[in-house]
Amino acid sequence: MLTDRVRFKPLQDKITDAVTAAKHIADGTNLFISGFTAGYPKLIPQELVRRAESGEQFKINLFAGASTGDMVDGILARANLVAWRRPYMSDKFMRQEINLGKISFKDDHLSQLSAKVRAGEWGRCDVAVVEAAAITEKGHLIPTMSVGNTPTYMREAKKIIVEISESSPLQEGIHDIFIPEDPPYRTPIPLYRTADRIGKPFIDMNPDRVVAILFSTEKDHCPIFMPPDSNSKRIAEHILEFVQHEIKKDRIPPSLPWQAGVGDVANAVLSGFIEDKNFSSIDIYSEVLQDSVLDLIDIGKIRAASGSALTLSEKARARFFNEIYRYQEKIVLRPVEISNSPEVIRRLGVIAINTAIEIDIYGQVNSTHVMGTQLMNGIGGSGDFMRNGALTMMVTPSTAKGGMISAIVPMVSHVDHSEHSVDVVVTEYGLVDTRPLTPRQVAEQIIHKCAHPDFRDQLWDYFQRAVKERGGHEPHILEKSFFMHQLFMEKGDMRQKG
Amino acid sequence: MLTDRVRFKPLQDKITDAVTAAKHIADGTNLFISGFTAGYPKLIPQELVRRAESGEQFKINLFAGASTGDMVDGILARANLVAWRRPYMSDKFMRQEINLGKISFKDDHLSQLSAKVRAGEWGRCDVAVVEAAAITEKGHLIPTMSVGNTPTYMREAKKIIVEISESSPLQEGIHDIFIPEDPPYRTPIPLYRTADRIGKPFIDMNPDRVVAILFSTEKDHCPIFMPPDSNSKRIAEHILEFVQHEIKKDRIPPSLPWQAGVGDVANAVLSGFIEDKNFSSIDIYSEVLQDSVLDLIDIGKIRAASGSALTLSEKARARFFNEIYRYQEKIVLRPVEISNSPEVIRRLGVIAINTAIEIDIYGQVNSTHVMGTQLMNGIGGSGDFMRNGALTMMVTPSTAKGGMISAIVPMVSHVDHSEHSVDVVVTEYGLVDTRPLTPRQVAEQIIHKCAHPDFRDQLWDYFQRAVKERGGHEPHILEKSFFMHQLFMEKGDMRQKG
Ligand SMILES: CC(C)(COP(=O)(O)OP(=O)(O)OC[C@H]1O[C@@H](n2cnc3c(N)ncnc32)[C@H](O)[C@@H]1OP(=O)(O)O)[C@@H](O)C(=O)NCCC(=O)NCCS
Ligand SMILES: CC(C)(COP(=O)(O)OP(=O)(O)OC[C@H]1O[C@@H](n2cnc3c(N)ncnc32)[C@H](O)[C@@H]1OP(=O)(O)O)[C@@H](O)C(=O)NCCC(=O)NCCS
Repeated sequence: MLTDRVRFKPLQDKITDAVTAAKHIADGTNLFISGFTAGYPKLIPQELVRRAESGEQFKINLFAGASTGDMVDGILARANLVAWRRPYMSDKFMRQEINLGKISFKDDHLSQLSAKVRAGEWGRCDVAVVEAAAITEKGHLIPTMSVGNTPTYMREAKKIIVEISESSPLQEGIHDIFIPEDPPYRTPIPLYRTADRIGKPFIDMNPDRVVAILFSTEKDHCPIFMPPDSNSKRIAEHILEFVQHEIKKDRIPPSLPWQAGVGDVANAVLSGFIEDKNFSSIDIYSEVLQDSVLDLIDIGKIRAASGSALTLSEKARARFFNEIYRYQEKIVLRPVEISNSPEVIRRLGVIAINTAIEIDIYGQVNSTHVMGTQLMNGIGGSGDFMRNGALTMMVTPSTAKGGMISAIVPMVSHVDHSEHSVDVVVTEYGLVDTRPLTPRQVAEQIIHKCAHPDFRDQLWDYFQRAVKERGGHEPHILEKSFFMHQLFMEKGDMRQKG
Repeated sequence: MLTDRVRFKPLQDKITDAVTAAKHIADGTNLFISGFTAGYPKLIPQELVRRAESGEQFKINLFAGASTGDMVDGILARANLVAWRRPYMSDKFMRQEINLGKISFKDDHLSQLSAKVRAGEWGRCDVAVVEAAAITEKGHLIPTMSVGNTPTYMREAKKIIVEISESSPLQEGIHDIFIPEDPPYRTPIPLYRTADRIGKPFIDMNPDRVVAILFSTEKDHCPIFMPPDSNSKRIAEHILEFVQHEIKKDRIPPSLPWQAGVGDVANAVLSGFIEDKNFSSIDIYSEVLQDSVLDLIDIGKIRAASGSALTLSEKARARFFNEIYRYQEKIVLRPVEISNSPEVIRRLGVIAINTAIEIDIYGQVNSTHVMGTQLMNGIGGSGDFMRNGALTMMVTPSTAKGGMISAIVPMVSHVDHSEHSVDVVVTEYGLVDTRPLTPRQVAEQIIHKCAHPDFRDQLWDYFQRAVKERGGHEPHILEKSFFMHQLFMEKGDMRQKG
């Protein structure tokens, strides 16, 4: 086992236990970890918690690829061990601490992060902790289910701790690692088609910096994907029909690659391809690949699927591990600065679909802050895809919280994506192509086609009054623009009664 | 003259007058014109106005590169001839009509526009009217002081009308025309350094589509640049000092190229280089080049200056025309999809400086809508540079309207650039580097360092109450967040008295 997984002899004497390894981490350490929904380290976080529980007082600054699992963000936050966390996270407890101001948090467009770390904007890179499937004969690292920022973190870190995941297959060949040069010496990223491989199937590693290697039998926590509900299905139908229409009108070429954000609607859109008759050879150029990608590969509909991570349910993972030789012909995992690169997204002409918390009548989008103040997860990569896609769509069910909240509001309480980055707005009720419309026309259509019928009257009334009382290119009555949010905060219901 | 300017024989019999040429333009025509602050056609707009004044009823849809001059946007709007206008404009009367909903207007990120036109998103390309210095022996077109979207407009238009500007020097060699392929066949834009020339010094033109050629003695309206006022000077000083500091800290390499938006502050920053001792070999990778660029060339401080247009004062233009052989070694004018390309901006690592209307305590920026409703000009290229620059700065004087308005507000009334696209906020009072800060820390610093002292207390009071009463990652009291805007709308003064 050992010689299978750590094939580089000079490093075999670095194999140790978590207690010894974690001694490199102390109060104030900047900790850069692998992990992007999957592929995060598991032993070191547990050991840090053990130390905290045994009375040691310390805090770390935690930098990841994006969200991880309870085994990192959850347990570290609960043990009160995190001073800073960057970027995107989705842990319930950590979110609560961030919103209380107890954990310092900052999000970045995911495409920009690695370069910022290399520039030193985030401070010293003390320790990198990365999960790996193996270390090769030449001392190269084979990652597991994600790439994220790991290549840059490993290059910049003064010390490296590797957690060898014994349950991961020795899946060489699924990763494509390319770190671009930084300005002023950057050259084009030589990726021309979704399937292209432009780098190495491993991460370069300076063995002198490896301070510890651990063996781990822990597994990523697997998400449970629900079969698409009727709202997600309707949203997916609207989207497929619309894209088909645009192709017929010759406004987009057939076979542009697709990106779909995280969550149920995204999964529903991709599942929609299974039944669909029009799309038969699909490219996915996305961030996180989910179960639906395997399903589509199985029925021969995927030409290529590119992402920065593979997040699979328990069942799908077993399937993937069993037939990895087959899936790896189609799937490639890249650093997030490549999967989310504006240069590449624009070059390929990606059709981007992302989920909003709320969308306003003029098409401004809130992806991150509930009621304008409470952070949900972060902007993640949505900005990279929405700003640069050839056709960009924001989707949301028309209501939240059992119908008490309208996802279509007069003015969003926080803006992550401006109207200029949002071509199309979709709810289960309908789809609006904002591209040929003025803001006022957008408002009319979003209210009538996308909003839930329970809220259309009050939205329309607001819009009409704003036009009359204030006018302007985007009429608003500033002191009333959040009246629906206020209603909800006061009465738990955005609906105006009587 | 004629044979100098229209050297392609087969087109010489297309030379005609404006009345005849403009017959190709009728009610409902989609009119695509050259022009990007400079280089717009002058005769055809006048002729259209003449027709309107003589009683003809018609309206056109007007698509430009960006803003033009009174001789296009002004006179056409006043004659009530414009149904649609896209994108960015800065004419006073046209702005008024847009805000009244009488002219339909939509803005786009300037980098995306040409591709959208080629994709057919904007509808049929009926007629292109372009200003040119000459048509060469081979039937190629030499533009004048701007490139903008002209290459794409000429390629897509069914009919082309050329206005030969007799006052323009035969300045072959200053333009660099490159139209990228569109997805899925796009390849990297082969621009590696500011000075690179990647295309042709002329625009390809299908002579069969040329329906008329006019000779014009009209000139671009020249802006008048004020010597920097004390606020602009202080903002410029903060910026130069900060960038110098970042270079010393090795967080950015020396000699990254600079972009500076339109307006006085931008001009002041570039003028700041004249006295400055630290920057001696400057690259400008920007959108509109102004007088300051010539000044810097004259004292030998410019390595290369790239833009999409050259907007010069009367005096500077004379200087430029006289010694064009010397300036054209340093200056290159490109299509706006290249000057503003996210791919190129990120590759080069541009230091971006743009002006805001208002900035909020968390660093969200309004560049376009006064009091949330009244369009000023449009987002133009600011989003292209702010999202993709290596170091991005938003600047504004701390107050407007004689001190009655604070440019630092609790919540901006419209968002064009989210906090993630804004690294640094600068007013004459100070500079905040938001990169290593949480939103709450950003708020503290922006209030104390950037806001005008007259407004600090009320901003601080709002922020403290928001933290206490609502909390969250970005505390806001939604129903109070526009209280300063309300004060201004009610009393003409944002200052809270008593
Ligand atoms: C926006 C986002 C949170 C939606 O996630 P989702 O899983 O599809 O949506 P859900 O409907 O489960 O909503 C998540 C929560 O927000 C709540 N919510 C949704 N809309 C809401 C609204 N308008 N107001 C208040 N709460 C709302 C839901 O009720 C739910 O709350 P709960 O966890 O207490 O049940 C998620 O897509 C996200 O984080 N996006 C930003 C990053 C991104 O797009 N990444 C992909 C780019 S590649
Ligand atoms: C934001 C922008 C309008 C500022 O322009 P400017 O010429 O530097 O600024 P000024 O101070 O002259 O302001 C312009 C007007 O806005 C008003 N204004 C400025 N800030 C204001 C505020 N916070 N509230 C209300 N009005 C305000 C000014 O009073 C002035 O009004 P006036 O024309 O009636 O005198 C301009 O930079 C712009 O259009 N930016 C967006 C596009 C862009 O950045 N392009 C460059 C990218 S390459």
